[in-house]
Amino acid sequence: MVRRRKHWGWGYEDQQPDHAALEASAATICERLGLPAREPREPVGLEQLALPLPRIEPPRQLAAFSSAGSYERAAHALGKSYVDVVRGFSGDFAHPPDFVCFPRAEFELEQAIEWCSSQRVAAIPFGGGTSVVGGVTPELPSGYNGAVSIDMGAFDRVLEVDPVSRSALIGAGATGPSLEAQLASHGLTLRHYPQSFEFSTLGGWIATRAGGHFATLWTHIEDMLESVRALTPAGAWESRRLPGSGAGVSPDRMLAGSEGVLGVITRAWMRVQPRPRQRSSVGVRFADFAHGAQCVRAISQSGLHPSNLRLLDAGEAALTGAGDGSHALLALAFEGVDHPVSEAMGRAREICREHGGVAGERDGASDSGGDAGQGAGAGGVGSWRSAFLGAPYLRDVLVAIGVMAETFETAITWERFDALHERVIAAAHAALGPEAAHARVQCRFTHVYPDGPAPYFTVIAPARRGSEIEQWLTVKAAVSDAIVAAGGTITHHHAVGRDHRPWYDQQRPELFAAALGALKATTDPAGVMNPGVLIDPLA
Amino acid sequence: MVRRRKHWGWGYEDQQPDHAALEASAATICERLGLPAREPREPVGLEQLALPLPRIEPPRQLAAFSSAGSYERAAHALGKSYVDVVRGFSGDFAHPPDFVCFPRAEFELEQAIEWCSSQRVAAIPFGGGTSVVGGVTPELPSGYNGAVSIDMGAFDRVLEVDPVSRSALIGAGATGPSLEAQLASHGLTLRHYPQSFEFSTLGGWIATRAGGHFATLWTHIEDMLESVRALTPAGAWESRRLPGSGAGVSPDRMLAGSEGVLGVITRAWMRVQPRPRQRSSVGVRFADFAHGAQCVRAISQSGLHPSNLRLLDAGEAALTGAGDGSHALLALAFEGVDHPVSEAMGRAREICREHGGVAGERDGASDSGGDAGQGAGAGGVGSWRSAFLGAPYLRDVLVAIGVMAETFETAITWERFDALHERVIAAAHAALGPEAAHARVQCRFTHVYPDGPAPYFTVIAPARRGSEIEQWLTVKAAVSDAIVAAGGTITHHHAVGRDHRPWYDQQRPELFAAALGALKATTDPAGVMNPGVLIDPLA
Repeated sequence: MVRRRKHWGWGYEDQQPDHAALEASAATICERLGLPAREPREPVGLEQLALPLPRIEPPRQLAAFSSAGSYERAAHALGKSYVDVVRGFSGDFAHPPDFVCFPRAEFELEQAIEWCSSQRVAAIPFGGGTSVVGGVTPELPSGYNGAVSIDMGAFDRVLEVDPVSRSALIGAGATGPSLEAQLASHGLTLRHYPQSFEFSTLGGWIATRAGGHFATLWTHIEDMLESVRALTPAGAWESRRLPGSGAGVSPDRMLAGSEGVLGVITRAWMRVQPRPRQRSSVGVRFADFAHGAQCVRAISQSGLHPSNLRLLDAGEAALTGAGDGSHALLALAFEGVDHPVSEAMGRAREICREHGGVAGERDGASDSGGDAGQGAGAGGVGSWRSAFLGAPYLRDVLVAIGVMAETFETAITWERFDALHERVIAAAHAALGPEAAHARVQCRFTHVYPDGPAPYFTVIAPARRGSEIEQWLTVKAAVSDAIVAAGGTITHHHAVGRDHRPWYDQQRPELFAAALGALKATTDPAGVMNPGVLIDPLA
Repeated sequence: MVRRRKHWGWGYEDQQPDHAALEASAATICERLGLPAREPREPVGLEQLALPLPRIEPPRQLAAFSSAGSYERAAHALGKSYVDVVRGFSGDFAHPPDFVCFPRAEFELEQAIEWCSSQRVAAIPFGGGTSVVGGVTPELPSGYNGAVSIDMGAFDRVLEVDPVSRSALIGAGATGPSLEAQLASHGLTLRHYPQSFEFSTLGGWIATRAGGHFATLWTHIEDMLESVRALTPAGAWESRRLPGSGAGVSPDRMLAGSEGVLGVITRAWMRVQPRPRQRSSVGVRFADFAHGAQCVRAISQSGLHPSNLRLLDAGEAALTGAGDGSHALLALAFEGVDHPVSEAMGRAREICREHGGVAGERDGASDSGGDAGQGAGAGGVGSWRSAFLGAPYLRDVLVAIGVMAETFETAITWERFDALHERVIAAAHAALGPEAAHARVQCRFTHVYPDGPAPYFTVIAPARRGSEIEQWLTVKAAVSDAIVAAGGTITHHHAVGRDHRPWYDQQRPELFAAALGALKATTDPAGVMNPGVLIDPLA
């Protein structure tokens, strides 16, 4: 039997801990978070769900690769944000797709898109379903006759590898582990490790401008994009494979970040590389986050290009077992494929010392490259890395035991960072109300640029059981307001989706939204592609 | 009296050599090029021009900052391609603007755009006028009542500097020397040196995705773009200042490369940096271009990120005094602002040796950074650099003495480079016909990526006097056909303009053109912005 993913949370069905295990976890976790002990609850089972009846049925031409089963509908109804998991856990599936298509080839995808267009049925591209912004939730504006999720899972092949130019043509439905395994047989890697790596897909990464492995230099997936192909209701859109170009506006940059509103990405030529052969990493302590941030700014402007430059504040470091709560921690690493990285690391450590940083006793250095999921990190970095990749699993447990855990991420130029940081922390605490006393509001940098960091905030607090969604909405709105008012972007790498719309609409140039709408009307004249995401459908 | 630029060629009026000087140059140049001696001719003087009569006059509200004088009309009628200089030299100004606007502030620019929109008069944004693709030539499709060039020269200020985030807000009309001088007083530099540096402007660079100083890593101006503001007929378009973002499709990437068809860029926040403090450069000889290319590929995939990695073939090296014609030459350089570049240079030289390269005897290394125009290069690199910046001046002389000099540039993935190179050289020779016997067809790499180079071809041949334009058209078409058929882009950093349209139209996704057209209809409903560039005006 095929191993099935949970219909409501992260990972596979067989990975959900039983009640006894949850009780044990609950005690440990609450102690660690400093929360009063909380009784774990059970997720609502698939068989207990009362999904809304389908409004439409798969037509004859789509029947062979469509399913209207409860599991498929539920499993495609929500993304993986905190509020999605809360909803799924409690059996609240208000907007499942009416059915799910699993096209096995482009002509089937074309048929699905065509049918949706002709019937005014919303077509929701679905990769790994790991959106944390409502990007795959078929919550529709009015005027649609139904919704179909288009699951791209079958487009999971590495189709071509060009070792000379270090590029590979990869199907949009390939997940992180799948494409890495296929590239590994050529000695190559895409080296893109978002937190959702296990389930998210190349097409989803491109559509959402996902942030990946590298903390500096090439931070977003589109930085590694050589060409891309999409199917839209108006036909195919495929760019020429080029290492660089100045021929007008970049067509690739119009698809990158289009979040499914223009069409469905089917495959892309990606820049790949050999697995790193040199690696050096170290954890550096700073008295506090502000001092660490000064140091990170200096490194980001030095021209050193570390692969990792993630600064954790004291709370973040402590919670992930990478510190005792008395200091901030910088996870600093260099990787190479050609030459030793020791000199670069040496200079970076010097900059750390100049800024009062104290390096861990032992360097993590190796001749064979570590992966995001492996590699003995040094000075607490290894602990943080394991926690990073395990976080989505942990969150399912948190939801079960009644703990809210939400994250907010942005980017801001350096000279406005301190003010933004202060404002966001204050806004989160204020919005948490009575729960603020037991809450943690933490910050780290996920990516860093010469002109500014990408700060990432984590809010953990006792959930208000029974009104988790209202509680979440209050915090989400307050923090998002603070981010946008302080000059940040509503998202650095989580995308806009449906949840970020109110703030995205304040942020982007008004005329740009009109332009994007006109562009969409060209590729999607019936307005059926992921309606409600990024822009309002045409009236 | 204000020093005036030539109305027909490169540089200032007082820089045009007199007949005696031209005769002396002609002998030297023809000998060097191996051409039969040719008699220099004189450019047609401004007073001898018979410009077409203006179809329209500046209206009252634009009169204070407009001119319909012959000099202004002629000086804004053409760009600076070979064929533009031929036309200008021989007094062939078929499509001058009817008048030229020189807005001094955004409200005047707004008035100009508004008037053009209301009168169906083409509005041609004009920065330095250095387009080599007809990007500023008011050669209009049918249906327009006239053309106005909008000269952005007054928007030449560095308006704000943020030393913490290393960013600067710069007016779109600032030329290279002007913005560098203003930034220098803050110890900063944009470090963008296209060949047109002396006259081209920031706005022009962004509108055309210009290629600059760095041969690897950040090659195009948009890589240094933090946010941008444009005025369009439908209003202002201004993005938020951010170091990075994943919020939907990038609005900045829609303006970058828009070549004036959406609106007029007025200013931008640019990522700047301190002047380099460490610099090391060397010239490395290779037996031939193919061996050099192998080496450049290895360096480009090494993670070393040299600032210069320009490979010249034997002919290119010889012609610029950087070689004797027996070998290819690699101009290799590293720059730093924080730490020595000697280790990186050491490893790069090692890679060169592994590929049979022989380094020049003396390294060019210094503690204070050199500029594109300064710096004693090593192993012939200095000679090449002077020739690079002097080339546009030289070309005026070549036109006067009847020598055709045209360049073609592209980008291609490594595995298809050899075939493209062969095909382009063959196509150029075939198209030159009888002149091929005296012609030189040369190649260099201007920029290099891990997945491929940006090859740049130079064609020099005796001009067919009296039919220079037909001769040029034949060669241009043959080489462009070859580039596009071999899988390259019609331009890596010269833009599309009007001249590259036939090949650009083959290259870009058809659906993308429709999408761009719809986008344009939003910002420019009357279709007056630079009509004929990039896309066809709406019918």
